[in-house]
Amino acid sequence: MRASQPESEPSGRMGRIALVGAGPGDPELLTLKAARAIAEADVILHDRLIGPDILLLAGKTTQLVDVGKRCGRHSMPQAEINALIVGHARAGAYVVRLKGGDPLIFGRGGEELEAARAVGIPCEIIPGITAACAAAASLSLPLTRRGLSSALHLVSGHGSESADLDHDWATLARPGATLVLYMGARRLAAITARMLAAGVPSTLPALAIESATMATERRIAGTVATIAPLVADATADGPTLLIFGETVAATTSRPGQRESVRGESAIAYEVGPPP
Amino acid sequence: MRASQPESEPSGRMGRIALVGAGPGDPELLTLKAARAIAEADVILHDRLIGPDILLLAGKTTQLVDVGKRCGRHSMPQAEINALIVGHARAGAYVVRLKGGDPLIFGRGGEELEAARAVGIPCEIIPGITAACAAAASLSLPLTRRGLSSALHLVSGHGSESADLDHDWATLARPGATLVLYMGARRLAAITARMLAAGVPSTLPALAIESATMATERRIAGTVATIAPLVADATADGPTLLIFGETVAATTSRPGQRESVRGESAIAYEVGPPP
Repeated sequence: MRASQPESEPSGRMGRIALVGAGPGDPELLTLKAARAIAEADVILHDRLIGPDILLLAGKTTQLVDVGKRCGRHSMPQAEINALIVGHARAGAYVVRLKGGDPLIFGRGGEELEAARAVGIPCEIIPGITAACAAAASLSLPLTRRGLSSALHLVSGHGSESADLDHDWATLARPGATLVLYMGARRLAAITARMLAAGVPSTLPALAIESATMATERRIAGTVATIAPLVADATADGPTLLIFGETVAATTSRPGQRESVRGESAIAYEVGPPP
Repeated sequence: MRASQPESEPSGRMGRIALVGAGPGDPELLTLKAARAIAEADVILHDRLIGPDILLLAGKTTQLVDVGKRCGRHSMPQAEINALIVGHARAGAYVVRLKGGDPLIFGRGGEELEAARAVGIPCEIIPGITAACAAAASLSLPLTRRGLSSALHLVSGHGSESADLDHDWATLARPGATLVLYMGARRLAAITARMLAAGVPSTLPALAIESATMATERRIAGTVATIAPLVADATADGPTLLIFGETVAATTSRPGQRESVRGESAIAYEVGPPP
């Protein structure tokens, strides 16, 4: 879709901008401050992943613009999003740029902030529940654990830039740490191959969670050696997070719980400690 | 203080438990779900750092118990906290264990979760805004930035366990990453010495933020080589987070903004790119 252009030319009244984290998708996981910003906005520029339940919190006259960002595919270039944000604010609007998760973790919030600064428009940041925290809560999976994990690494597996895969995987996945991979489902085979080549033990527990906290949430458990084909078979279409580390194995799921995987070859995977 | 004991013996009615992240302290940064849990709880067992503004959201008949956890000093042993949580729930109460930040990141939520599981009491996790996200929002500091930082490392500098200092500092603080140190202010001299010994460039930008998002928020900017004595001089008494990485230098503070440091030797530090 083409987003609408600002309705008026820059006016004497300067607007303002808030970069707002919408969290994982469950409206209950918005902060009070984010919910208020959504309710008060004149214009909301939102990612495609922001669900209708959250957008319902907007005022009746609020202009909603889907800027079409989804799972790393940008149907609108970032520069165009920046221009829209700034254009609406210069026209006097209170512009909420509503982003999944937290705006300053893998959200390009920094680029939007710089665009606002470049033209001197006030820009507030309202944090959101980042995907790692949302997934951990939904899974009841401690991201750190005394004696088991004293470091949490969040890395992105997304990107045309191959540099994104050049993390020091052996260190990130070493015992005593939890590694969370954002936007890495589609490059998971390449990433886990690099982890194994770097010496990460093939038994390292791994867990994929798609659409955490939503009704469509799905989980797949495995190891660093098995998780990539399992995820590929599951044909995820929601945002998928990968978690690696001993805390995954230490997490006890509800007894007998099984997670179904939709699709033509429906398979059930046990969620719990891998063998 | 001694916390109160559960008022009644285990009844036929089983209670339930929620481990709830209170975020950084600003009540506006509670999630809607956390605010509701606080309002509905029969008993709230809270860290000392949870402010009165948040506890005001509790019902008039809610029993508030300060379990005294503050900056890593545990005035009540974790086992005793676990026993209190479980005891109140077995007596039929809806128990909210209210913790700063997110309950599953450096919060010992995992241990409380296991205590609940051990006796078969339902335990929900409600995530919170973790300190790194709160600080980043308050500072307008992107934790990741295309071309500048594609990894975010959260580590704890707290603990009697010296293993907590045995992180691979050279990897965590290498270019292209942002490193956030939780509960590390008191051991900052030892930690930064290890970073420098591991080959981290002495010019690596560093920023300390105390009591992020609160009226008492303070900031100190420096480098990995200078930040420890600056923080020591500032005699922080609120929770202090340290952020290391090029994104710190790239963050432009509001023009002319200066941060005052309280104490006998009051000094003002410029927040912005270090020299």
